[in-house]
Amino acid sequence: MEIYVYTSKAIWKRGREGTIKCGCGAELDFSLPLEFGGKAGVMTAEDAFVASINMSFATTFFSYAEKEKIDLIEFECDTNGILDRTAPKTMFKRLVIHPKITVGKYEDVEKVSKIVELSQKYSNICNSVKGKVVVEFKVDVQEKK
Amino acid sequence: MEIYVYTSKAIWKRGREGTIKCGCGAELDFSLPLEFGGKAGVMTAEDAFVASINMSFATTFFSYAEKEKIDLIEFECDTNGILDRTAPKTMFKRLVIHPKITVGKYEDVEKVSKIVELSQKYSNICNSVKGKVVVEFKVDVQEKK
Repeated sequence: MEIYVYTSKAIWKRGREGTIKCGCGAELDFSLPLEFGGKAGVMTAEDAFVASINMSFATTFFSYAEKEKIDLIEFECDTNGILDRTAPKTMFKRLVIHPKITVGKYEDVEKVSKIVELSQKYSNICNSVKGKVVVEFKVDVQEKK
Repeated sequence: MEIYVYTSKAIWKRGREGTIKCGCGAELDFSLPLEFGGKAGVMTAEDAFVASINMSFATTFFSYAEKEKIDLIEFECDTNGILDRTAPKTMFKRLVIHPKITVGKYEDVEKVSKIVELSQKYSNICNSVKGKVVVEFKVDVQEKK
């Protein structure tokens, strides 16, 4: 077994607000989302959950891109999480990952398609969520002059 | 159906590092965890995932505590995520939530026990993860003089 432990500490500040300290060193304020009576502009559990899927897909992609020596020019990825709060069970039903990738060589396009597939398959977080994860990607080529 | 959408955008910076912008307004740098060849001190997908469970449990608790007029003095919550990277499927197998709650009145102790149970049951994120979620809590009373 290959086991890793990740930790965090949440501390209440006031009302529906707190501070969270992650094991990695990142520290930030959080609250309930605005639509559930929280404060605007700070992190929420719902945003962090969707962001964790996005970051996991992205970093897994970055690792494979490095390994496969992809000439990566740009990588942008929008991830949307659809939260269903229909009683009694509230949960994220669907997570849609939309990576847009620009590479410098035509021969990288096929490799990128393969890497997108592997990144979803081996993402620690994509494998840890109940909702359906869907990836819809786009690759562009921008050859250097 | 009661549906909410949460969004995020990840942008590649270099190597295994990027920046993430969440719909709530929070923006931060991220990388692979140090143990998988990333950079120290910035957010990681794994830390954000565990933090999202912590924040969701905490904010659900804060809402109930407000509703039930609990005389809350302190709330601290450590959450640990056990990631099993045994091939071929890598995932968070177990999430352990350890809230420590201090209230100002003895009569709040029973209410707090009930609220802890409800907070796990109605947390958007606890309901969205595959791994087993366990809550082990402690309540202290600190009466005002």
